[in-house]
Amino acid sequence: MKKLLFQFDTDAFPSVFDTVVGYDGGADHVIGHANVTTDTVVKLVEGAIFTRAPKDKKNTAIFVGGSSLQAGQEVYDAVMSTFFSNFRVSVMLDSNGSNTTAAAGVARLKNSTSISGKKAVLLAGTGPVGQRAAVLLARLGADVSITSRSMSRATDACKAMSSQYNVELNPVQAATNQDRATAIEDAQIVFACGAAGVRLLEQSHWSSLKQLQVIMDANATPELGVEGIDMMDRGEQRHESICWGAIGFGTLKLDLHRTCISRLFDDNKTLLNIEEIFSIAEQLAG
Amino acid sequence: MKKLLFQFDTDAFPSVFDTVVGYDGGADHVIGHANVTTDTVVKLVEGAIFTRAPKDKKNTAIFVGGSSLQAGQEVYDAVMSTFFSNFRVSVMLDSNGSNTTAAAGVARLKNSTSISGKKAVLLAGTGPVGQRAAVLLARLGADVSITSRSMSRATDACKAMSSQYNVELNPVQAATNQDRATAIEDAQIVFACGAAGVRLLEQSHWSSLKQLQVIMDANATPELGVEGIDMMDRGEQRHESICWGAIGFGTLKLDLHRTCISRLFDDNKTLLNIEEIFSIAEQLAG
Amino acid sequence: MKKLLFQFDTDAFPSVFDTVVGYDGGADHVIGHANVTTDTVVKLVEGAIFTRAPKDKKNTAIFVGGSSLQAGQEVYDAVMSTFFSNFRVSVMLDSNGSNTTAAAGVARLKNSTSISGKKAVLLAGTGPVGQRAAVLLARLGADVSITSRSMSRATDACKAMSSQYNVELNPVQAATNQDRATAIEDAQIVFACGAAGVRLLEQSHWSSLKQLQVIMDANATPELGVEGIDMMDRGEQRHESICWGAIGFGTLKLDLHRTCISRLFDDNKTLLNIEEIFSIAEQLAG
Repeated sequence: MKKLLFQFDTDAFPSVFDTVVGYDGGADHVIGHANVTTDTVVKLVEGAIFTRAPKDKKNTAIFVGGSSLQAGQEVYDAVMSTFFSNFRVSVMLDSNGSNTTAAAGVARLKNSTSISGKKAVLLAGTGPVGQRAAVLLARLGADVSITSRSMSRATDACKAMSSQYNVELNPVQAATNQDRATAIEDAQIVFACGAAGVRLLEQSHWSSLKQLQVIMDANATPELGVEGIDMMDRGEQRHESICWGAIGFGTLKLDLHRTCISRLFDDNKTLLNIEEIFSIAEQLAG
Repeated sequence: MKKLLFQFDTDAFPSVFDTVVGYDGGADHVIGHANVTTDTVVKLVEGAIFTRAPKDKKNTAIFVGGSSLQAGQEVYDAVMSTFFSNFRVSVMLDSNGSNTTAAAGVARLKNSTSISGKKAVLLAGTGPVGQRAAVLLARLGADVSITSRSMSRATDACKAMSSQYNVELNPVQAATNQDRATAIEDAQIVFACGAAGVRLLEQSHWSSLKQLQVIMDANATPELGVEGIDMMDRGEQRHESICWGAIGFGTLKLDLHRTCISRLFDDNKTLLNIEEIFSIAEQLAG
Repeated sequence: MKKLLFQFDTDAFPSVFDTVVGYDGGADHVIGHANVTTDTVVKLVEGAIFTRAPKDKKNTAIFVGGSSLQAGQEVYDAVMSTFFSNFRVSVMLDSNGSNTTAAAGVARLKNSTSISGKKAVLLAGTGPVGQRAAVLLARLGADVSITSRSMSRATDACKAMSSQYNVELNPVQAATNQDRATAIEDAQIVFACGAAGVRLLEQSHWSSLKQLQVIMDANATPELGVEGIDMMDRGEQRHESICWGAIGFGTLKLDLHRTCISRLFDDNKTLLNIEEIFSIAEQLAG
């Protein structure tokens, strides 16, 4: 019986990234659906839960993705509301790599330094990855800030995660590279989560910061988010800091993502959201 | 050479149900297309008939689905109009499970009692399953009624099937559970075909009906269509009647659906619509 | 590791033709995306280049298709602009079979006669196949005309190919079968590239032309483009001319198309556009 992964994407195209990793994680077929909403997902889920005998249901699984974490979370919740008794299949939420990238990133930060009591700044952290990384760092005891060009977006992101995960996060407005330099000047941990190809920080903004223990950049498309970090950096010492580039910690992200896909097919009850995915990340990060 | 099943769905999403059964029925790949219309299907069909050598064409097949039986029937007809000489592939029509669910249901009703001369009521039977089940029961000699909350919908459904299949069907307006109770009070056969999660009949409405020989419910999502039937019932005797729940006869429906998919790849000329599918259902129902 | 072919189609449906040939060419999975544009393709390409290790990237490839060659060429260019250093995968452009059908057709014309110095007419040649065949014939030294019902469409097609490939092409207005008869009366080579089921030329228009060495019709759907040619003709002598029908040279087109797909997976750097595809066509045509 074939392992079928239904990829429910809230965007107009099912993410190619998620499709490839779905196959590499062991799905026999990845079936993408675009523009999935809380309304339209119900019938799709019914098709997933009513088609196979109880012992075979573990061979059907659902992946929820897309660029909006809020839309993804809502679809994930709608998927679970459609389940009843044993009419259910395993589900993973990873909108825009939010959970796997954040979990892999934070696992690598934790490999590089202790987190508790440190000041951590998520640069351009209002997106899915930044939001989830903020939750993980706050739960590990860090004092966490999220910067954004817009104060209202920073505040919204902090509120969304605070209310969902009961953590305290600090919104910071930082519109320019110089503003972001100011935001990190007393931080021990910096994680740049900006859009592909957008520079957030120049080398001079961080190269002389003695308190900066770890700096990580999730952007793999030139130009990179943090000048002076190589995208291949895997815990490289540069200036005063341990550096992680997008491909450097991306190896763990991909390994984690594939491992999560593989776990979906262990049974028909697995639910993978931020906590479960971070727990797997910690195991893989050793 | 891979067995390719092209799933042409008239809805905005290719049915997950049909995709899963496509794989379980033996297709190597199920390729879903949404929003398929009589106009857009022509080029899709040309791609199916011009790509493989004559001896290999049996490895390409077409499945037409979607929530509207009328739209599906029109697309099915348009598919066949595009074929010429040996430029053709096998095709199955099963909009919303209309043919497989109706055929499996009626085959199970026929396992439970003789049909000819009986009064049969399709509760909320204006959808694809109800329409097709009505045709099958009428052809087996039953006096068949279709109920609907709206008289015009009931009339339209009866007319559509009457003109296509030359059978006589009786439209009945039944807006409430009590109306439906009235509609079945002299019926020997009741088949509830309503929407998922919608209660159509309370237990007290049928539990004391001595003439009611078989009662069947196609709704597998709580709350069920007929109170007092368990969705797992497989010919269970309850009160005066033999009872079939959605999962109970759904095993045959799924087996039938998979068998039909498998038959599509026997040659490049197989056409599976209601008659052919009911004939396979009868073989499988033993 | 599975060979994944991402089919980026500029039309509203990913071409079934291209999907089938993708599988028959050796892709393990063909993942279709519709309505792809230069804007939306960037994120899709990022998913293709960031998901697999360098040695594994050859197992991911991109096919660009759709009915508009211009839209396809723009998407193809946008795909390549997204690549950087070794973050790239193999790509093939074949909008509407433009490259494979044109290359196979011209390879068969070249099998049948010498091209250099001949007058060649592409009937209804403003579409993708006609445009590309015109380029190939001009490069082989023919004096090439493209006919269209509309002079402006003929001129646009000639200009598009002239500016891109530095060849000279002659636009000709020919609205009726009689106009097209006039357009070919001193041609040695005629290639009919019109829409499926549209008659372009009657038998009397070409049967007595002594100078007409080869005549080819790309239309496989009755009625055929050139009356008097059978769609199965493979270099058949009819009247004064060697004749090729759509299925007759279509065998090479399909073989070529499949071979190109297979080549995509040889490494992660292969780019298949008209020149590369014609070169493969010449090898296959012997």
